[in-house]
Amino acid sequence: MMRDWLSAQAQARPEGAALIIGDTTLTYRALHEQTATFASRLAAAGVEQGAVVGVLLSNRLEAALAVHAAPRLGVTLALFNTRLTPAELDAQVRAAVCRILVCERDTLLAALALPSAPHVLCVDPVDDPRLTPVDRISGDSAAYCEGAIDLDAPFVMMFTSGTTGTPRGVVLTYGAFFASAMASAYRIGVLPGDRWLCVLPLYHIGGLSILLRSCLYGTAVDLWQRFDAPAITERLKATPITLISLVPTMLYRLLDDAGDAPPNLRLVLLGGAAAPTDLLERALEAGWPIATTYGLTEAASQVATALPDEVRRKPGSVGRPLIFTHVRVTNEQGRDQPPGVYGNILVRGPTLMRGYLGETPLDADAWFATGDIGYLDADGDLWVVQRRSDLIISGGENIYPAEVEQALRQHPAVADVAVVGVPSAEWGQQVGAAIVLRDPSVSVEAILAFSRTRLAGYKQPRVVRIVAELPRTASGKIQREAVINLLKVAG
Amino acid sequence: MMRDWLSAQAQARPEGAALIIGDTTLTYRALHEQTATFASRLAAAGVEQGAVVGVLLSNRLEAALAVHAAPRLGVTLALFNTRLTPAELDAQVRAAVCRILVCERDTLLAALALPSAPHVLCVDPVDDPRLTPVDRISGDSAAYCEGAIDLDAPFVMMFTSGTTGTPRGVVLTYGAFFASAMASAYRIGVLPGDRWLCVLPLYHIGGLSILLRSCLYGTAVDLWQRFDAPAITERLKATPITLISLVPTMLYRLLDDAGDAPPNLRLVLLGGAAAPTDLLERALEAGWPIATTYGLTEAASQVATALPDEVRRKPGSVGRPLIFTHVRVTNEQGRDQPPGVYGNILVRGPTLMRGYLGETPLDADAWFATGDIGYLDADGDLWVVQRRSDLIISGGENIYPAEVEQALRQHPAVADVAVVGVPSAEWGQQVGAAIVLRDPSVSVEAILAFSRTRLAGYKQPRVVRIVAELPRTASGKIQREAVINLLKVAG
Repeated sequence: MMRDWLSAQAQARPEGAALIIGDTTLTYRALHEQTATFASRLAAAGVEQGAVVGVLLSNRLEAALAVHAAPRLGVTLALFNTRLTPAELDAQVRAAVCRILVCERDTLLAALALPSAPHVLCVDPVDDPRLTPVDRISGDSAAYCEGAIDLDAPFVMMFTSGTTGTPRGVVLTYGAFFASAMASAYRIGVLPGDRWLCVLPLYHIGGLSILLRSCLYGTAVDLWQRFDAPAITERLKATPITLISLVPTMLYRLLDDAGDAPPNLRLVLLGGAAAPTDLLERALEAGWPIATTYGLTEAASQVATALPDEVRRKPGSVGRPLIFTHVRVTNEQGRDQPPGVYGNILVRGPTLMRGYLGETPLDADAWFATGDIGYLDADGDLWVVQRRSDLIISGGENIYPAEVEQALRQHPAVADVAVVGVPSAEWGQQVGAAIVLRDPSVSVEAILAFSRTRLAGYKQPRVVRIVAELPRTASGKIQREAVINLLKVAG
Repeated sequence: MMRDWLSAQAQARPEGAALIIGDTTLTYRALHEQTATFASRLAAAGVEQGAVVGVLLSNRLEAALAVHAAPRLGVTLALFNTRLTPAELDAQVRAAVCRILVCERDTLLAALALPSAPHVLCVDPVDDPRLTPVDRISGDSAAYCEGAIDLDAPFVMMFTSGTTGTPRGVVLTYGAFFASAMASAYRIGVLPGDRWLCVLPLYHIGGLSILLRSCLYGTAVDLWQRFDAPAITERLKATPITLISLVPTMLYRLLDDAGDAPPNLRLVLLGGAAAPTDLLERALEAGWPIATTYGLTEAASQVATALPDEVRRKPGSVGRPLIFTHVRVTNEQGRDQPPGVYGNILVRGPTLMRGYLGETPLDADAWFATGDIGYLDADGDLWVVQRRSDLIISGGENIYPAEVEQALRQHPAVADVAVVGVPSAEWGQQVGAAIVLRDPSVSVEAILAFSRTRLAGYKQPRVVRIVAELPRTASGKIQREAVINLLKVAG
């Protein structure tokens, strides 16, 4: 058993900055004290040891307090996306067996309307006869000034979003985050003066892992509720932010806004979606220290990370696995692929989840099949191509959309492209391509002629449509279902 | 079980610099391969799993190879000081139950002459009919390219030197070093480009811990066999050394030699002996980033460390304990002293040894009585005054030499002073002081008059001698036994 990380840090570095929200800075001592108060209020409101406490909060102080309060209360947190539909949220609340739900003004109505009817607590001072605002509850904060952590105990459940399919609950232990924080520090470094800007939601692994590793390091988190490019640009220029985690669309917007790299920035951890090469080149040219990462909710965030020097040498690679994390790339028979050959990405290591909610737990030494496709190059660096579910099977042949996209992108007139499998009675799937043109005078036929010189016949796009823009998610991933629908119409 | 750290790092960062000796740089891949070869040779020479392997080497490649080979061979290392007398060495070899001893040309004769007669291996190509040089043995290196580490298993034995008394064997597990590396990184930081100059012997905790934490971090060690101030100054100026561990006497000499701080140096970890305030002031003035540390062999090195900003604010303090390490200061009844009051320093945490060789093991949650005297101030920062064995008991009163020294040092004519207990038939001990004068025209009586205005009567020095220089050990500690002998003559 070890001491909860926040109380340990409150003793190791009490006056260090822990959490910055807007103009307010909380030291570790202050955050520690507020966590004790918050935990005591949840306990007084009926949260019992062993319970699953749902959290439906945006990136705000109380979300951080809930995370730090968990080991002091002895509860597991279920962190829910605040943008879920009522039906999605209800399904996740039921799956998590979550009978108490902490919400805020903006999520209150959704919480109260849930058919599963968890006990609802609100962190905002809302007058509603159905609930008591958390800050009007009084608890015994002295009883919650320290918690004991068993590294093997479950800490949080998070639901993987995915662009399709039913979300699954990922159960992560304290140990997974502890190992992840250490391996991350040993890869990208940590300095006592670090300040990490967190604009990714705390209910996503990218955001939560910033909060937890910074607590272990004794460094500061600058927490943002939403991505506001001009305001973040200003913050990066005016304050000593040394680290920021971004998804590609955010980086595009910051580059537009900020231009050259902010002076104090030591590293941009770029993840969430494969980073387009043009984005990397533009960012590196402007001096931004980009580290590309391949992360998974199931692995408590980073699996592999390439440092800026490596990104410069090999734009597109996500580098080598972190220390103590192992990656294999296998064929359909489960045998290792040779260097450079696409296959299924498998991950093993101390940061892995213990399993999906309601499914058989993973063995301690299990290889987790990520469902992602990629390859290891001769140096052992990982290249992630895409989700396995995006694989096109046409007439029995496996076709990797990324390979086709890469070939098409080499045509000078092609600005962007998405390749998907379009349903076909004859072939099962046919290769379809939605193309954004840089030069509208170039014909589809000219592009296909170019493609025929680079790709085998069975990989050639059969259904092509020129579009003004590709449909993408907020985090920059291509919405492949939407592309398929576009091409069904075209086909 | 986890993978041995070097093979893990050879996979995570194969091309990173691991070990620099003179003009040679080994990458992690190269160090990993050489370790496999070295381990296979030791095995072929008769080293069996479960054995205790003695190491009697200076700071050289093979000492590092032996350390990294241990988990691959499944052995515990006994690291011996190369400067021991034959009798001392023999006692330690027997205490460690060490039947095989790895030595070098300079330690060969001592090794072969041991009455305990361990099997001797030599890493230098020496022609001696009694032994086979290690590099002429051929082993199967493929069998030693990975080892499994159980964090609870013993890794090394080191003998605490102390200036008096019989050395005791400290048994440290892998877990102690693993925890220490992590807590050190979270206190002083780590960067992927770090390079740590190690001139402390690897058979001392200060040196060994550099080697092990750098391996876990994937950063470089620049290993030096002996302290050569001009050469090290040159190295600090010409190469990107970012960290260096020093004892006070070394820092004095580097300041004389180098003057202003080398440009790349991020931190000087200053330990091994209480740092005189004048040294700290001089170093800080010249811009050296001094971090003072309180470390113990029994705690796998750092217990508390103050960062340069803190050293500037509070020269003399060693800062707060590292995360997950706890420190108490107690009185003779075992009760916590109030802030600012001297007492016995107790330590608890995951970096602690499992016990002294041949003595009852410590409990997992035990408080270890360090034998050092100090106090915690109101901020929780630790001040280490001195070894408990230096405490003077005169007429039943406890007198802390440091307190008397501090009072005497405030006299402008006093350059340096050592206060000890001089045996006395009447009082048990009497307070004795050896004083180095800055101004030789000042009389002892003048200094004592000054002292009487600052210290209670029972703390007043009764035996005083003016000396040209205080007797110190190589690591800068005052040799109190020698001072006592000086004063016995004077008394």
